[in-house]
Amino acid sequence: MNARAKDKLQGRVRAVIEAITPQIDCGRFPVKRAVGETVTVEADVFTDGHDSVACMVKHRPVGEGAWHHVPMKPLGNDRWRAEFRVTSQGRHEFTVVGWVDHLETWRRDLLKRHGAGQDLAADFAVGAQLGRELAGRAVRLEAQRLEEWAAALIDNASDVDERVMLAQSEVVSEIAMRHPDPALVCESPLVLGVEVERERARYSTWYELFPRSTSRSPGGRGTFADVIARLPYVAEMGFDVLYLPPIHPIGQAYRKGPNNRPTAGDDDPGSPWAIGAKEGGHKAIHPELGTLEDFKKLVASANELGLELALDIAFQTSADHPYVREHPEWFKKRPDGTIQYAENPPKKYQDIYPFWFEGDEWPALWEELVSVVEYWAEQGVRIFRVDNPHTKPFGMWEWLIARVKRRYPDAIFLAEAFTRPKVMYRLAKLGFSQSYNYFPWRNSKHELMEYFRELTSPPVSDFLRANLWPNTPDILPEFLQYGGRGAFMSRIALAATLGASYGIYGPAFELLEHKAREPGSEEYLDSEKYQVRHWDLDRPDTLRDYIARLNRVRRANPALQTDRGLRFHRIENDALIAYSKRAPGTGEAVLCVVNLDPHNAQSGWLDLDLEALGLDAEQPFQAHDQLSDARYLWRGPRNYVSLDPRHSPAHVFRLRGKVRSEHDFDYFL
Amino acid sequence: MNARAKDKLQGRVRAVIEAITPQIDCGRFPVKRAVGETVTVEADVFTDGHDSVACMVKHRPVGEGAWHHVPMKPLGNDRWRAEFRVTSQGRHEFTVVGWVDHLETWRRDLLKRHGAGQDLAADFAVGAQLGRELAGRAVRLEAQRLEEWAAALIDNASDVDERVMLAQSEVVSEIAMRHPDPALVCESPLVLGVEVERERARYSTWYELFPRSTSRSPGGRGTFADVIARLPYVAEMGFDVLYLPPIHPIGQAYRKGPNNRPTAGDDDPGSPWAIGAKEGGHKAIHPELGTLEDFKKLVASANELGLELALDIAFQTSADHPYVREHPEWFKKRPDGTIQYAENPPKKYQDIYPFWFEGDEWPALWEELVSVVEYWAEQGVRIFRVDNPHTKPFGMWEWLIARVKRRYPDAIFLAEAFTRPKVMYRLAKLGFSQSYNYFPWRNSKHELMEYFRELTSPPVSDFLRANLWPNTPDILPEFLQYGGRGAFMSRIALAATLGASYGIYGPAFELLEHKAREPGSEEYLDSEKYQVRHWDLDRPDTLRDYIARLNRVRRANPALQTDRGLRFHRIENDALIAYSKRAPGTGEAVLCVVNLDPHNAQSGWLDLDLEALGLDAEQPFQAHDQLSDARYLWRGPRNYVSLDPRHSPAHVFRLRGKVRSEHDFDYFL
Repeated sequence: MNARAKDKLQGRVRAVIEAITPQIDCGRFPVKRAVGETVTVEADVFTDGHDSVACMVKHRPVGEGAWHHVPMKPLGNDRWRAEFRVTSQGRHEFTVVGWVDHLETWRRDLLKRHGAGQDLAADFAVGAQLGRELAGRAVRLEAQRLEEWAAALIDNASDVDERVMLAQSEVVSEIAMRHPDPALVCESPLVLGVEVERERARYSTWYELFPRSTSRSPGGRGTFADVIARLPYVAEMGFDVLYLPPIHPIGQAYRKGPNNRPTAGDDDPGSPWAIGAKEGGHKAIHPELGTLEDFKKLVASANELGLELALDIAFQTSADHPYVREHPEWFKKRPDGTIQYAENPPKKYQDIYPFWFEGDEWPALWEELVSVVEYWAEQGVRIFRVDNPHTKPFGMWEWLIARVKRRYPDAIFLAEAFTRPKVMYRLAKLGFSQSYNYFPWRNSKHELMEYFRELTSPPVSDFLRANLWPNTPDILPEFLQYGGRGAFMSRIALAATLGASYGIYGPAFELLEHKAREPGSEEYLDSEKYQVRHWDLDRPDTLRDYIARLNRVRRANPALQTDRGLRFHRIENDALIAYSKRAPGTGEAVLCVVNLDPHNAQSGWLDLDLEALGLDAEQPFQAHDQLSDARYLWRGPRNYVSLDPRHSPAHVFRLRGKVRSEHDFDYFL
Repeated sequence: MNARAKDKLQGRVRAVIEAITPQIDCGRFPVKRAVGETVTVEADVFTDGHDSVACMVKHRPVGEGAWHHVPMKPLGNDRWRAEFRVTSQGRHEFTVVGWVDHLETWRRDLLKRHGAGQDLAADFAVGAQLGRELAGRAVRLEAQRLEEWAAALIDNASDVDERVMLAQSEVVSEIAMRHPDPALVCESPLVLGVEVERERARYSTWYELFPRSTSRSPGGRGTFADVIARLPYVAEMGFDVLYLPPIHPIGQAYRKGPNNRPTAGDDDPGSPWAIGAKEGGHKAIHPELGTLEDFKKLVASANELGLELALDIAFQTSADHPYVREHPEWFKKRPDGTIQYAENPPKKYQDIYPFWFEGDEWPALWEELVSVVEYWAEQGVRIFRVDNPHTKPFGMWEWLIARVKRRYPDAIFLAEAFTRPKVMYRLAKLGFSQSYNYFPWRNSKHELMEYFRELTSPPVSDFLRANLWPNTPDILPEFLQYGGRGAFMSRIALAATLGASYGIYGPAFELLEHKAREPGSEEYLDSEKYQVRHWDLDRPDTLRDYIARLNRVRRANPALQTDRGLRFHRIENDALIAYSKRAPGTGEAVLCVVNLDPHNAQSGWLDLDLEALGLDAEQPFQAHDQLSDARYLWRGPRNYVSLDPRHSPAHVFRLRGKVRSEHDFDYFL
């Protein structure tokens, strides 16, 4: 065997490492965490024979020199676990190292031999030798300590029992963990990434509105100033992200009229997604909305109220976009020389030109597109809701998101990809912070349980953060069309408690807008996409107060600010769904029960998994409904629940196993 | 974006490939197949937007220049599949390539537009352009054809319907599959291995005996000549591998006496696994067995009867092994200068010295060990049963097996690692052809179903081939100790039908040897490991004929020669287990029902999964018991079965849905 073969084989390394988790596609993509969250790493670590092994997780922010080490603990069946907390934004990395632990093997065997009454002289000598070898690798003070330890082990004047005790020294273990023999250390070649984002990537509450519909005067068109006036309304409902559809100039060519009619009247405003006109493109502002100064004022005013602005990134143009004239090479030409408009055969969308990503000029196109995001980031925007990312190349998004995050590590991207599951998952993997998903169409208990189990279990939970929308300007689900007020309440209660992030398109939502353009359609009648609407925010049937209450409950209960640890509980009625979440730090549990029937009161017997809730089966506990403020004294897993959609279709209980104050105690005794 | 960044990003490539299977540990290890088997490859392949994709599996024997291509077919949900057959021994490799298929996208859209009655002139022009682009990449004859096709598409004199038909040309599809635009092709970076071994690695029937116990004269010690005389006995039972425990000189120091007594008498032969004496080590033959010439004669004689010899590879020495004197650096020294003997504290095995694999001289030790295997390969041995591979470094085995297979591609290694599951799996992954396993201790229906589902499902089925042993010289399971003849029949019937490979340790097995050394022990009383035994092969209660019948049934039914496609069927009695296998090529099904109760007759209603068996639920079918030759006419899934362990504890039915001959037909009508 020549020297090179020898080096490659590392023949003295006997430990092996397999099956490290969390891991996405063999490490091709990072797992996602928010600042403050933990990464729980597991791996199979073992060696040949009967020797003990030791192993550690190594982790660090990418670019930092030194690794942090966390010893792993055995779970049985050769599986090991350790966890670490990520405390800064940006990409982190981790891997696992392991080695045959001769010291631990020796100590374990020493105890066995001692138990069997064997002579231990030779064994103490072996231990002393191990200690001295370790001293050779340790730092000075440690080395001194080890030499003393080795000497004491072989001091025949001292008692055998005492020396067996001495052998188990914790201090020596700790030194050994710090200085394994490098020639024996197995280092996993798999260095895995963790993309750490700020907390809002994990927990956010979105409100979408069309600025042009915010005018206080009926018949008028809303401006940024009107949006500023609307901010308190949005903030008081408890939202923290205000998302605006595209704010850019809108094309005239092939402009659509109300209800997506093929031709528009002179006064019809057109779809905000038909971006680009003579006034400019993706970096310009629609003149009717205001100036860049007005926009910056909006950003600042929103921030003052705890609201962050999110903009729409829609990479497509109208036929009037300056790009079409200045960069025809970014668009595909048909054989007759005209530009290829968007199609979904046999449907044609002549008002929209897609970019041509297979052209030779793709590098310049990518650069221009990233400059659009960076431009708005420069104006103070950090949240981007990306329109139809699944119709642009995956590689472009991976590059673009990484590029933006290099300059703006606090940038958050929400993928609006209502498409096939693997396409949605790919977009999440490659960098989108949050994802729209199938929630609008998951209505039955079975559908909800199946889907949310998938979303909140690995591997999906490690790369995709769901943002739940009961409605959007494109989606008025059938359930809302026919379910009445009860349906709206039930769906938003589900969204706000099943999802750490959720959003509504308002004021359509809180004002119970439910008329579809035609039967069987999910399009709104008189959709704001094609016309200006005026909303009577003070209507007595508004859900505004209910929504404000839900969002207050979310803020007060950290268990609702995470999607980890979702667990469904049995309840003997298919119209009722029950689930709990627990706060990662405190373990505080929130139990939700939602009536899925928008018309009728439903009741049933809950069968709680008390262990999962951290509750003692023998002790009474308090279920405190955070929505109604009612308190119930429960005991054991079976409890009766009844929900009437005319009042509230949901319970959101905080569960308290121990009495916290005299006051609480008095209340329920 | 600079040129290097541009190259790296491959911005025009829009297809992505994920989740290729079969795949072991991200491609770190190959999957296993035998010559003639197929590899069914699946992958997720998709692109952004609505375009169609095409994809292919590329495969080749490693070292061959050209790839073979197999187009993949869609399974739905963006999953694709193709399969290829491996027809030569050695390492093969495969990967997946995919691309956006503009031709197919165009054809699909053309049909939609045609269906909607749209004008197609521009579309035909696009098609013609695609055809001409393809012509630029195709070979001459193809290019001509494509030019003609393109011209015909835009020939306005010709009928539109006809041109729509022409657009769907199969020939053009095939040319397109051969010549995708290289700038658009996504090639998975994951090139996966397939280790292809000869058929015996998949399907083998083993018999183990101690040569020294084959003497025809009571009191004598068997020689290779005696083993030659025993060959017809073994061959007539239908075995194809004859495995011998170590045939090397046995150490004198610390030699064990009968029943593993710490001291041996002068005449005690010692354990064959205490290898090495003054007569030599791992490359020498025990003088009492014969010479190298005698050994070669044994190999040749066995081959003549269709039997292949398997030797034991036990990498350890007695204290008398020449290595101890010549290479003290290969052994670990204790502080007092003595060599470290084997231990499992508090137990000590002074007769065995393990090698020290962490010493500096490991490269020379590895070279010596591989030379042992190569030495016996030179003498004509190709099958090696490796003793306790889990107590030697994993890396050494991976290197050694690969090294031996380079010179002897038909070498087969069986791992005798009765240890923790992950350790066993690692050994299988790194190259062992077959593996001992937990079968000896899986007795109940639930245990058997759970374990064999694990073994025959991916990923395990892709890297581990189980070899099932109802007994070994080290393992006399409790079930055989107390179950009587019925237990032996039931266990061998299970082994022979659940496992494409199985073996017995004889004549102990066929002669129903069942006495343990002491209660609670799995050691044989008067074990052949420590003393010479004489067996009366002609005892009337021998299972010899039953075994011969089982092995004939295995040879006649290809379904029993593979572990793929094992399926359990419901049977309403927990003492009965029912399962089927199907032959890969013909789909011929074999259904086994085994009585797990060794004492009592058991009966129950089978509930067959007829679809899995390829049978028509409406038609009668014949169940032909290959063991008893009885034939039953069944119809539908529910059928009654009764098995009495005093006669036969097993049915092995060949199922025939269609009458094959007049004779069969007459029989059951």
